Amino acid sequence: MRDAIDLAARLATFDELWKPKIVGYLNDYKLLVVKVKGEFVWHAHAETDEFFLVVRGSVTIELRDREVTLHKGQLFVVPRGVEHRPRADEEAHLLLIEPTTTVNTGDAVGSAFTAEAEEL
Amino acid sequence: MRDAIDLAARLATFDELWKPKIVGYLNDYKLLVVKVKGEFVWHAHAETDEFFLVVRGSVTIELRDREVTLHKGQLFVVPRGVEHRPRADEEAHLLLIEPTTTVNTGDAVGSAFTAEAEEL
Repeated sequence: MRDAIDLAARLATFDELWKPKIVGYLNDYKLLVVKVKGEFVWHAHAETDEFFLVVRGSVTIELRDREVTLHKGQLFVVPRGVEHRPRADEEAHLLLIEPTTTVNTGDAVGSAFTAEAEEL
Repeated sequence: MRDAIDLAARLATFDELWKPKIVGYLNDYKLLVVKVKGEFVWHAHAETDEFFLVVRGSVTIELRDREVTLHKGQLFVVPRGVEHRPRADEEAHLLLIEPTTTVNTGDAVGSAFTAEAEEL
């Protein structure tokens, strides 16, 4: 049976940016940790909402009409179909939750950022 | 459109123990914050896994064959069908994620702890 998942400890095991790693599952959702810095690609997920929780640092989720800045301990759910681009001026660490079938770059599949998450 | 959700700020708005409050949604899942202290009731959710993340303090998830203690920044997913009883010696604050249809006491529905979550 699975054990406790220490987010900071899991994040300490890798350095890559924008490469989500699977740390667990919740039914047919994957729990991912990711390190981010700089700007991601604009994309949307037509079929699902996407959960972001900041574990370290701060991240801004750019939307087409505004932006939402999240600090440690804050979360945001990007509604399905809404274009967004995460951005972080300094390195930030996130917990993401989305269906196991979701591709990180959504409808921007084929972007240089497109990456299949592996189990950590 | 929804805004950033500050977990500590939301938790600061109420004092009740064992009464989960809805702070957001992820598709057909609810995002809940809850304050706990003492022992909950033994129960299982036949139809779903259950996500626990500690926001403040520490909580122990008792299982029938062992227990898992979680500190701030640690999460655990109780697999569907597995009997469990959360316990906290000191007040602890949690983020829970489960389907919108899930009852907090699972198959122990009708317990004194059974409570329908309201939006915060």
